[in-house]
Amino acid sequence: MTEFQVHEPIADRVRNAINKQQYDEAVALFLDLLPGDQVEVFNLLNSGEQETLLPHLDVEATAELFDRLTDAKTLEAAKNLPLERLADVLGEMEPDEAADLLGDLPQEQALQALEEMDDAEDVEQLLAYPDDTAGGRMTTAFIAMQRITPAQEAIEVLRHLKPDSEIPYYIFVIDREKRLSGIVGLRDLVVAAPQTSMEDIMNPEVINVNAELDQEEVAQVMTRHDLQALPVVNHRNELVGVITHDDILDVLAEEHTEDIYRLASVGDVQLEPESPVREHLRGRLPWLYLNTVTAMFAAWVISNFEDIIAQVAALAVFQSVVAGVGGNAGSQSIALIVRALALGKLSPRQAISVLGKEVFVGILQGVAIGIVVGLGVFLWRGNAYLGIVLGLALLGNMIIAGFAGALVPLLLRAIGQDPALASTVLVTAVTDSLGFLIFLGLASIFLNFLI
Amino acid sequence: MTEFQVHEPIADRVRNAINKQQYDEAVALFLDLLPGDQVEVFNLLNSGEQETLLPHLDVEATAELFDRLTDAKTLEAAKNLPLERLADVLGEMEPDEAADLLGDLPQEQALQALEEMDDAEDVEQLLAYPDDTAGGRMTTAFIAMQRITPAQEAIEVLRHLKPDSEIPYYIFVIDREKRLSGIVGLRDLVVAAPQTSMEDIMNPEVINVNAELDQEEVAQVMTRHDLQALPVVNHRNELVGVITHDDILDVLAEEHTEDIYRLASVGDVQLEPESPVREHLRGRLPWLYLNTVTAMFAAWVISNFEDIIAQVAALAVFQSVVAGVGGNAGSQSIALIVRALALGKLSPRQAISVLGKEVFVGILQGVAIGIVVGLGVFLWRGNAYLGIVLGLALLGNMIIAGFAGALVPLLLRAIGQDPALASTVLVTAVTDSLGFLIFLGLASIFLNFLI
Repeated sequence: MTEFQVHEPIADRVRNAINKQQYDEAVALFLDLLPGDQVEVFNLLNSGEQETLLPHLDVEATAELFDRLTDAKTLEAAKNLPLERLADVLGEMEPDEAADLLGDLPQEQALQALEEMDDAEDVEQLLAYPDDTAGGRMTTAFIAMQRITPAQEAIEVLRHLKPDSEIPYYIFVIDREKRLSGIVGLRDLVVAAPQTSMEDIMNPEVINVNAELDQEEVAQVMTRHDLQALPVVNHRNELVGVITHDDILDVLAEEHTEDIYRLASVGDVQLEPESPVREHLRGRLPWLYLNTVTAMFAAWVISNFEDIIAQVAALAVFQSVVAGVGGNAGSQSIALIVRALALGKLSPRQAISVLGKEVFVGILQGVAIGIVVGLGVFLWRGNAYLGIVLGLALLGNMIIAGFAGALVPLLLRAIGQDPALASTVLVTAVTDSLGFLIFLGLASIFLNFLI
Repeated sequence: MTEFQVHEPIADRVRNAINKQQYDEAVALFLDLLPGDQVEVFNLLNSGEQETLLPHLDVEATAELFDRLTDAKTLEAAKNLPLERLADVLGEMEPDEAADLLGDLPQEQALQALEEMDDAEDVEQLLAYPDDTAGGRMTTAFIAMQRITPAQEAIEVLRHLKPDSEIPYYIFVIDREKRLSGIVGLRDLVVAAPQTSMEDIMNPEVINVNAELDQEEVAQVMTRHDLQALPVVNHRNELVGVITHDDILDVLAEEHTEDIYRLASVGDVQLEPESPVREHLRGRLPWLYLNTVTAMFAAWVISNFEDIIAQVAALAVFQSVVAGVGGNAGSQSIALIVRALALGKLSPRQAISVLGKEVFVGILQGVAIGIVVGLGVFLWRGNAYLGIVLGLALLGNMIIAGFAGALVPLLLRAIGQDPALASTVLVTAVTDSLGFLIFLGLASIFLNFLI
């Protein structure tokens, strides 16, 4: 039985032991934890403490830890290991995680480590695939049997295999050309007569994906069909690996981070609050510059109305309300569309009706907000025309927000881009510029009543 | 072997068959799909087509479909079913999904359906727990055995059980008081000698959660420990259910939608682009009103500077740049902090250093943006003081953005709230109001040089 929310006190005890140079005590405390908890505690230590602890862990514990740390943290920890140790740890890691780490290490260090490694073939094979594809996510540690293998023999093979938590609870059945033929659940194996062959108990309708498929689509397939393990084949239909449910959790976490970051104009999915400052700047500053350009364009729109603002300074007070509330309404539309697209809930054909609905909601929200704000400003400033101009501008900008907030992500998807990418900055550019234009344009028309 | 991205054409064929009233053909096409694909195709049909198709499906197919549709869609489809049919479908559904549906149905219809159901106990037990807790997510269809049961007998029991994809590949071991004692993987069962008892092959260190634990924490536990199945116990430590990996995928999708919606001021996690207009208004309008209030406060800040804006209308042109870029920088900080908190990567003790780093990044980004924009505006308008005032205001607002963007979500978490909730609207209120204040305040000081 395990308790949660206990990582902080344990990290403190490990930290104390390290600081008192009682390394055996620190290691004992650490190894007493479940692997999943080890990761949490390790993350709570600072870099210096992590560096001090690592050499005192054995190869197996280090490998288990590296398997579960984020890629960035694993890289940081691995960089300082002596070459031989690194090779041993890589050999103990899950092949897909080892391949990820090798791909992240400086090329020379990676090549040297590969040379030092025993049984490097599995990992070398995985290095051929980009991290974010089915091939990059799969493990090569799976169980495959021939179609004619009898159940009794399959059970004997299982008996002799070292149990490994990542090996899924399935046996994959292949033909003589290594092509995937079917899948046998362990439960079916358990209840089968000893001489039954795999092909008689297998399910031949096994969902599989190509090694080059993007990881996001892999996650969609596994989610849609509630799969615990998904076999991966190469272009010759040969079984080359298996993606397991825990890999998919990592993919989903990464894709979620990417969505949230992109909607907030953060360009680097690996960025964390504690990343080095230069990485913050690299991931964030370019997007801020882009935002600055669109903001300057909106400023140029306003500059065309400077003469009437000089006459009615109150316009400067309320122009920002039109732009701000419009931008907020646009964000709402973006969030709904981006999420529906990510969940595969919105087909291209439903796009028109959704666009219409967003515009309609924009009209209703515009009326609701426009009337209240218009009335409020009339009461505050005592000028009915100012209230009317502001209310109408809010209405207009909310309609634009609904239209642009739905259209931009749909268009980005239509041209094969991630709809979360750039939607916010583009829609804000539209709601800012057109919001100012409508408000100040209407004000020009009613100028005589506003002075 | 299955192909993907083929849902649209199949939906078209089903649609055609429905429109030609060839219902057998429509059902045949539909049932030929894998359950996961059936859901996708069903979602592509419009409400009328869905309503026409449903009565032609048998009870099992309807239950399988309902298990996989979103709660909102299931409710919509279930509402129109005759009571007896509804009860039959509920009886075939997975107990946790059936309980969710019963909880969503109008109370009278739910009570009548429960009365009609055979074997309603499992579901009634689940109704006691809120949807978004471990108890609400667990299934009661799991396999539990006594500590003394021999392996041979366990295999016999499995042989007689109807295979069901949701039953996990584990056997849970309980003592005479039904308390959870351990877990046996099917692989261990397969390779065990026939007379070995469960307590000899079980792993007694089984991670479990209380039925009342929030689903987000449940997902964290399962992700942290890479679990395929997580047993759920009640306050007497009795095993009452099991959460399986596919339930956790649903939880993660829901939590992710919630994060993105809340960051974009959409208050209803169930809202979809195609939801009825009144639900859009209920989920979105209150947040827009809140945003309007903060925008009016920012407008009030500006109104204190109306006299100087009347003298230098150019200030009205550039004030929005300060607020806009500051808001964008604030969103970046929020995204980083919210995501790190959601992934459990940020402990309370790291909060101070993270806050400091965000302020530091704010300074650097403020300098980078301030210099470029200041210079640009000097070149555009020919007034160096305007450029300096704008550049300084941008710098100041970026520091505020980093500070508020990190502090607000951290504070929300510290008081036990979801950091995604209200962070955006609060931080924008700060960057807008203080952005205007700094820019127009500085302009007041340098007024003589700006005219």
